[in-house]
Amino acid sequence: MLASLAVETTRDIRAFIVSQGEELLCGLTIDTNASFLAEQLTGLGMRVVGMVTAGDQVDVIANALRDAVARAQVVVCTGGLGPTGDDLTADAVARAFDLELVLDEEAMSQVEQRYASLGRPMPHSNQRQATIPEGAQVVPNPLGTAPGFHLELHDKVHLWFLPGVPSEMKVMWAETVAPSLTATLSPEAPLRRVFRVMGQGESALQDLLGDLPERFPDVALGFRARMPENHVKLVAGPTHAEQLHDAARVVRERLGKNCFSEQEGLHLTGVVGALLTARGERLALAESCTGGLLGHLCVSEAGSSAWLDRGFITYSNEAKLEHLGVSPQVLEEHGAVSEATVLAMAEGAAKAATAQWGLAVTGIAGPTGGSPEKPVGTVWLGVSGVSGQRARRLQLGRDRNSNRQWAAWSALDMLRRQLLRAGQ
Amino acid sequence: MLASLAVETTRDIRAFIVSQGEELLCGLTIDTNASFLAEQLTGLGMRVVGMVTAGDQVDVIANALRDAVARAQVVVCTGGLGPTGDDLTADAVARAFDLELVLDEEAMSQVEQRYASLGRPMPHSNQRQATIPEGAQVVPNPLGTAPGFHLELHDKVHLWFLPGVPSEMKVMWAETVAPSLTATLSPEAPLRRVFRVMGQGESALQDLLGDLPERFPDVALGFRARMPENHVKLVAGPTHAEQLHDAARVVRERLGKNCFSEQEGLHLTGVVGALLTARGERLALAESCTGGLLGHLCVSEAGSSAWLDRGFITYSNEAKLEHLGVSPQVLEEHGAVSEATVLAMAEGAAKAATAQWGLAVTGIAGPTGGSPEKPVGTVWLGVSGVSGQRARRLQLGRDRNSNRQWAAWSALDMLRRQLLRAGQ
Repeated sequence: MLASLAVETTRDIRAFIVSQGEELLCGLTIDTNASFLAEQLTGLGMRVVGMVTAGDQVDVIANALRDAVARAQVVVCTGGLGPTGDDLTADAVARAFDLELVLDEEAMSQVEQRYASLGRPMPHSNQRQATIPEGAQVVPNPLGTAPGFHLELHDKVHLWFLPGVPSEMKVMWAETVAPSLTATLSPEAPLRRVFRVMGQGESALQDLLGDLPERFPDVALGFRARMPENHVKLVAGPTHAEQLHDAARVVRERLGKNCFSEQEGLHLTGVVGALLTARGERLALAESCTGGLLGHLCVSEAGSSAWLDRGFITYSNEAKLEHLGVSPQVLEEHGAVSEATVLAMAEGAAKAATAQWGLAVTGIAGPTGGSPEKPVGTVWLGVSGVSGQRARRLQLGRDRNSNRQWAAWSALDMLRRQLLRAGQ
Repeated sequence: MLASLAVETTRDIRAFIVSQGEELLCGLTIDTNASFLAEQLTGLGMRVVGMVTAGDQVDVIANALRDAVARAQVVVCTGGLGPTGDDLTADAVARAFDLELVLDEEAMSQVEQRYASLGRPMPHSNQRQATIPEGAQVVPNPLGTAPGFHLELHDKVHLWFLPGVPSEMKVMWAETVAPSLTATLSPEAPLRRVFRVMGQGESALQDLLGDLPERFPDVALGFRARMPENHVKLVAGPTHAEQLHDAARVVRERLGKNCFSEQEGLHLTGVVGALLTARGERLALAESCTGGLLGHLCVSEAGSSAWLDRGFITYSNEAKLEHLGVSPQVLEEHGAVSEATVLAMAEGAAKAATAQWGLAVTGIAGPTGGSPEKPVGTVWLGVSGVSGQRARRLQLGRDRNSNRQWAAWSALDMLRRQLLRAGQ
């Protein structure tokens, strides 16, 4: 939840989002377009005052558009631009604003070229996609057959109509809509800072930073839980750069090592990879209950072959003995889910790979396999490396997959902290 | 896209969804609640006629509620039930329908009990959560502090107000709202069949099954892409069971082995696990570019320890030599991404684990590492097992993570087909 979302700007440009498509109303499709557009419009400095989803009926769509135009200066509508009978956006625009539909030569040639480039004849029904309201300008669609269009109504409302396919919509937004909105309306983009945090929950962050809104009244403070991380966001109007800078300094100091990145695109794995690369060292993994998830997270980062050597999914005890050199005595005495075993696994993986670092996870993900001493959700994490060995016990919940996710991410964060320690 | 979404039922119950919260309008949160509710309401046999998102302003919410009541007999609203000043749903309901707000004893005692069970004193602001419109009934919230409420307006419209936290909302939907709607309105749930398909794209499915709507006019045919699978859906009104049965038979015949499951909850990994378990055999994995994803997918299935023995993330060539026994000659002559190497990996993993089956993936996930002969996106899959050895080359795209996803899922599907072959 954001403590305060309102950021003052001198210009108040209101926006409205209309999503169209029966598949949204059946719950077949989650409307990620609307949240993408909401974030983008907000990021440009506009205020989204509402979103609505309409099914495939001309009257309903037309009413939604009229309502949107009454409430906002910028309206972005997605969906309903395809070639079939249930694609009704252009008809609805014509109905809503009493406009004629015309066959647009430019749009027609785009649709034809698109088919020509695919080496396929254009079905007659696609002519429908080039039929747009009079006065509208075509928005090119570099990825698909459905062009969008832009309409400026006499009372200076800008309406943008884009396809519902997210990849097509996003490219058209970035290439045409956003630059045009910026040029025409000159919105004042708010200033933003994001702190990505591991190891502190939302309420702990609230306690830690709750006094900021009072100290920095022009900076909005927000928290966003993005399991397993939390984001702390600061947003300010364009004239409050100095206050934002001061607030960011306070946040940075208080978060300390719990903040692993101030870049929105820099993931925990990327931070770990950069720390390893900077040291010229490599990592080996030993996974029991995470079953490959840790490796998957590492490899998701491009360039991981520079620092990830190999991994062992040692689901069975035999595999722990044979590949990681965990001794039968340790397994016998302490069990597979224990501090002694997880450290032996981490050390064994590093040795087998002649890597400088070993990271291991073993636990009881559930739903079965627990005992009174080691209930479902018991997980041990272990790091072995240049800064010594370290183990940590987690007591997680009853959900198998969320236990595995928490275990993998917590292990990566533990490695990050050990790498920081080694670097000092 | 669904070829036809309209399913006739004799009773037409219209529903409307209202989402509330400024964080949705900023694009901070994707509204998964709305699509969940849309799917649930449709599944019960109602027709969702619209969805709207309102920010934190009493007037806007009140207008949205009045509009919803004018268009539907069932209105479900999520969000705005918390204890803070921006939680305005109850005020908006009072404003919209000219009702008083009253402190509800039952709701108050639920909030108090919730705090008592957490061992924390209840902040005074939480009294707000027990203040609901007169005539409304409290909906218990077993997971959180915010009770919901239900209001039946004189003209027989049922309004349900639930918290925005998805886990809380879903439990309250399942425990209270759905049973009540079913009992009060007796909607006629449509009949549904779902076929989960690997190895056939949406347009191939359209070509294969496109004649069904003509042959079975009362059965709606739909396709849903759920990367990497595709779903074929058949939906019919409750009086068309026989036609649905016949249509399902045709779909089943035409899909053949491409359909791996007719149960919505049964994943590809579950099918593979069941086939292995039935044979009493075990699997070992050897992963290069998938880097643990294959293991992760297997382990996501509860009970996987019965059939998954171990896995090797052999990111480096040394690891392929040391743990999988791939010969230096094979690597030298054919390269790490080749048919010979992937088969040696699969065989080597099975041998190292004394498992009956070995499954291997090696490829160039990107963004770099390609060559003219082996461009980015080149992936080899290999199975070694009871039904012999089999390898397959994929030529995927340029996106690292989608390449890795496709590679892992395609490998699992290849194993499934080999298991079916072994079983004959």
